[in-house]
Amino acid sequence: MGAAQSSTDEFVREPLGVQERITADGSSPWPVEPHRYRLIAARACPWANRVVIVRRLLGLEPVLSLGIAGPLHDERSWRFHNDPGGVDPVLGIEWLREAYENAIPGYDKGVTVPAVVEISSGKVVTNSYQDLEFDFATQWTAHHRPGAPDLFPAGRRDEIAAISDQVFHDVNNGVYKCGFAKAQYAYDKAYDALFARLDALSERLSGQRYLVGDTITEADVRLWVTLARFDAAYHGHFKCNRSTLAAMPVLWAYARDLFQTPGFGDTIDFEQIKQHYYGVHAEVNPTGIVPKGPDPSGWLTPHGREQLGGRPFGDGTPPGPPPEPERVPSLPEPAHSG
Amino acid sequence: MGAAQSSTDEFVREPLGVQERITADGSSPWPVEPHRYRLIAARACPWANRVVIVRRLLGLEPVLSLGIAGPLHDERSWRFHNDPGGVDPVLGIEWLREAYENAIPGYDKGVTVPAVVEISSGKVVTNSYQDLEFDFATQWTAHHRPGAPDLFPAGRRDEIAAISDQVFHDVNNGVYKCGFAKAQYAYDKAYDALFARLDALSERLSGQRYLVGDTITEADVRLWVTLARFDAAYHGHFKCNRSTLAAMPVLWAYARDLFQTPGFGDTIDFEQIKQHYYGVHAEVNPTGIVPKGPDPSGWLTPHGREQLGGRPFGDGTPPGPPPEPERVPSLPEPAHSG
Repeated sequence: MGAAQSSTDEFVREPLGVQERITADGSSPWPVEPHRYRLIAARACPWANRVVIVRRLLGLEPVLSLGIAGPLHDERSWRFHNDPGGVDPVLGIEWLREAYENAIPGYDKGVTVPAVVEISSGKVVTNSYQDLEFDFATQWTAHHRPGAPDLFPAGRRDEIAAISDQVFHDVNNGVYKCGFAKAQYAYDKAYDALFARLDALSERLSGQRYLVGDTITEADVRLWVTLARFDAAYHGHFKCNRSTLAAMPVLWAYARDLFQTPGFGDTIDFEQIKQHYYGVHAEVNPTGIVPKGPDPSGWLTPHGREQLGGRPFGDGTPPGPPPEPERVPSLPEPAHSG
Repeated sequence: MGAAQSSTDEFVREPLGVQERITADGSSPWPVEPHRYRLIAARACPWANRVVIVRRLLGLEPVLSLGIAGPLHDERSWRFHNDPGGVDPVLGIEWLREAYENAIPGYDKGVTVPAVVEISSGKVVTNSYQDLEFDFATQWTAHHRPGAPDLFPAGRRDEIAAISDQVFHDVNNGVYKCGFAKAQYAYDKAYDALFARLDALSERLSGQRYLVGDTITEADVRLWVTLARFDAAYHGHFKCNRSTLAAMPVLWAYARDLFQTPGFGDTIDFEQIKQHYYGVHAEVNPTGIVPKGPDPSGWLTPHGREQLGGRPFGDGTPPGPPPEPERVPSLPEPAHSG
């Protein structure tokens, strides 16, 4: 996603610009169809990460390819600076903005990831991450892998929606409200809401392995992408520093459990996360210097959450490893811990 | 102290501007004399903190009064913005710069704390923190409290000097080199030196309670002032973030041990520390927003270092509580830890 600043001292997230739906039932002009679309994400972006994880868990890789914008962008757009020649190999574009302008000439809203692009026309179909997750789960079912989990169980959707709403405002977007606040009161308010919510979530997760029911749902995906970036970016860069995630025992164990679950940690590139946050937000970090820390090796330590029971994939199975071109770097060996 | 930036990409600390000595033996124009001088410090500043701690440990409070500049300053000078009327009640000045200009008309070097000012003339005598500590310990002996410890034991001075030199370059000044680096390579170099040194110090302190011998020496004072500020300022603001101090078990226990020793923790005001670093360095933190974290309550938890033995004050005794006007705020109750 990209970030927009309101004219007040509080950060207000800009509405999304292209919100078509891709459906299996003919209710939109965009039918579910293998190889017709390309998902554009960025390793840094939590909103894109959610969609990438859902695609992994459901096994949509063979029918919906993935393009990865690099971690840096300027006021114009995310761009493909990590690809050979600086160009997405399928869409042939240098700037993601081009795909938005193909869809809407003179496009003047945020050029955000994730975005789904129709390959033949080069047009963005949607950048609505929340619809994408739901539609991947409910419209693309004919293309799910065998053993794909049910991320939106029918009897649990209200509960998922309720907790997801809290997580969105106080956590996913809450860290941005801390980091992009332009006045102390706005920061203080966002910080209090963030940690009050994290405390409540910690309490909830102290006795159950996942947020809703006993299996992984979309609510977990949503919370996890922010936890995964917490110590690498939000704790220092966005001043979300009551404590590190690693010092919050329940949430840290929960986050490690999912990190070590296929489909989660194998989508994370900590270097790209740090390059993005510290390299792009000049109004927060004018020098552009990227911290060498934190040591990420703790993510691979035992978490002990199995003892809470739970069936991670319900009646399904874990996904296999990511396709070779989508592999992320391995974590370094643990450093001395002082 | 104040900070100066070199013209290269690496931070180089500016030399001190007024380096007279106050002596008991007539070797300088400034004799040791009760009530003649006033020590000016700032709660935020680690260099001033060293001298404040040594003054506390030796019990010089009754003969050498303490003025506290507020945490904020601009390019002109530290100032007394927390005092009634914004004026130091003894020196009657608003800006510390005035005392430097009284000493050296047209003074054009750094206006730093600590500084010792002759009260009658209003002139800065010295801002040389290292000489001040040594001279407090060796020249002001006639005014030491009963039970004052020996911070520079005669047989240990070479050892203290050797370790102090390492700590100065890699730790005390090392965190500034991280935070004020203007290029990635300069930051990376300072970060590596900092954590390599902290690892070596952790190793050294894993089997002995203090850095040199079995008592508190000036070497401990020197290291401790940087550790005390580590999580509140350097970890996030200066990007010293391989891990928090609280995640480095040996150094964290060592730092808590000294925090809980009279003369150390009772000189610390975490709010002023944060206000200073985040409020003054606009080139690092342009918004000036001050983080609410970290939760400092962990400083009061048991440290277990007694089991290493050691005699904190050697043949001496701990100092009593600080004079009432010098008391710092108590730490808040522990927050929920997630």
